[in-house]
Amino acid sequence: MIGIFLFDGVEELDAVGPWEVLAYWTHQYPQDGYRVQTYATGGEVVRCAKGMRILPDADTSDMPALEVFVHPGGQGTRPLLSDSLHLQWVRRIRETTPLMTSVCTGSLVYAAAGLLDSRPATTYWESVELLAELDSSIRVEDTERFVDDGEVITSAGVSAGIDMALHLVQRLAGAARAREVRKGIQYDPAPPV
Amino acid sequence: MIGIFLFDGVEELDAVGPWEVLAYWTHQYPQDGYRVQTYATGGEVVRCAKGMRILPDADTSDMPALEVFVHPGGQGTRPLLSDSLHLQWVRRIRETTPLMTSVCTGSLVYAAAGLLDSRPATTYWESVELLAELDSSIRVEDTERFVDDGEVITSAGVSAGIDMALHLVQRLAGAARAREVRKGIQYDPAPPV
Repeated sequence: MIGIFLFDGVEELDAVGPWEVLAYWTHQYPQDGYRVQTYATGGEVVRCAKGMRILPDADTSDMPALEVFVHPGGQGTRPLLSDSLHLQWVRRIRETTPLMTSVCTGSLVYAAAGLLDSRPATTYWESVELLAELDSSIRVEDTERFVDDGEVITSAGVSAGIDMALHLVQRLAGAARAREVRKGIQYDPAPPV
Repeated sequence: MIGIFLFDGVEELDAVGPWEVLAYWTHQYPQDGYRVQTYATGGEVVRCAKGMRILPDADTSDMPALEVFVHPGGQGTRPLLSDSLHLQWVRRIRETTPLMTSVCTGSLVYAAAGLLDSRPATTYWESVELLAELDSSIRVEDTERFVDDGEVITSAGVSAGIDMALHLVQRLAGAARAREVRKGIQYDPAPPV
């Protein structure tokens, strides 16, 4: 199971970008053996950073052992950085989850929880300095779209979660599969400005 | 007001891609005078194509006169193509809305409602033939990321809604603003496969 964490103040695309990639993959290719679900504290509706309300699939307390955990970012990460219960929970997930991933300022939470100790990592462009302040042992790579350090993958801001999730599909099911998913969501980006 | 229509079977990123771009813009730059909201029939929770459940901001019956309407796509458009009440509703919105936009197979609904008569338009790559079948007067432009035909803008599949929405910001508030929004969501896409 791949678990995407939802919380009040999560940036919408931080969560839904990876969700789209991973849900497309796991629905179209169930033979690959993966599933993806969203989890939130208490299983309650979450109010995202820009106001969209999403119902999670399940309560975090019902989260099974995961193959991959996804921690999105957003303004809602600010209170989490000093929320010792949340940081403890993240450390506990880390103990049993082979692959921890984050999008945007989700990596700040990982840094505060001590998961990025002496690792290369990235985050949202505006939070690069804060990431280094939270843990000076982190080698901040602020020009990368995402940084794959084996057991931990961090991404740049918001839309970078789409690229990171495609990379995840590539790691877990191969490049050919990831290309099929890319085609499925017609991801041939062409920013007009 | 910019209205994004949500419905059962809407593809998640079709709706949330434009939402992220437009909500980032309207929250960060309220001085531009726009707002964005989501609408669904009865104001009820919507189950998206890949299973995510989203609560709309309001009931479609409470939708005010709009400046822009966004019709996303997804498997849920199939029943809408022969839903005469929905097509009638879309035609009624068209009468009072200066700018009608669609993502992915949302353009199939516009075609079925007669909105694309003799216009250039695009859609999801897999639905290009169906678009031409629905209205043979449409000039299908299947190599474009989006097609701006003045009062109607159609986009290619799923992730193309992000590019279309940035184009919308550019049309409504200028290229400099659209570049700021692009930076805000760190949209420097780099597909890894």
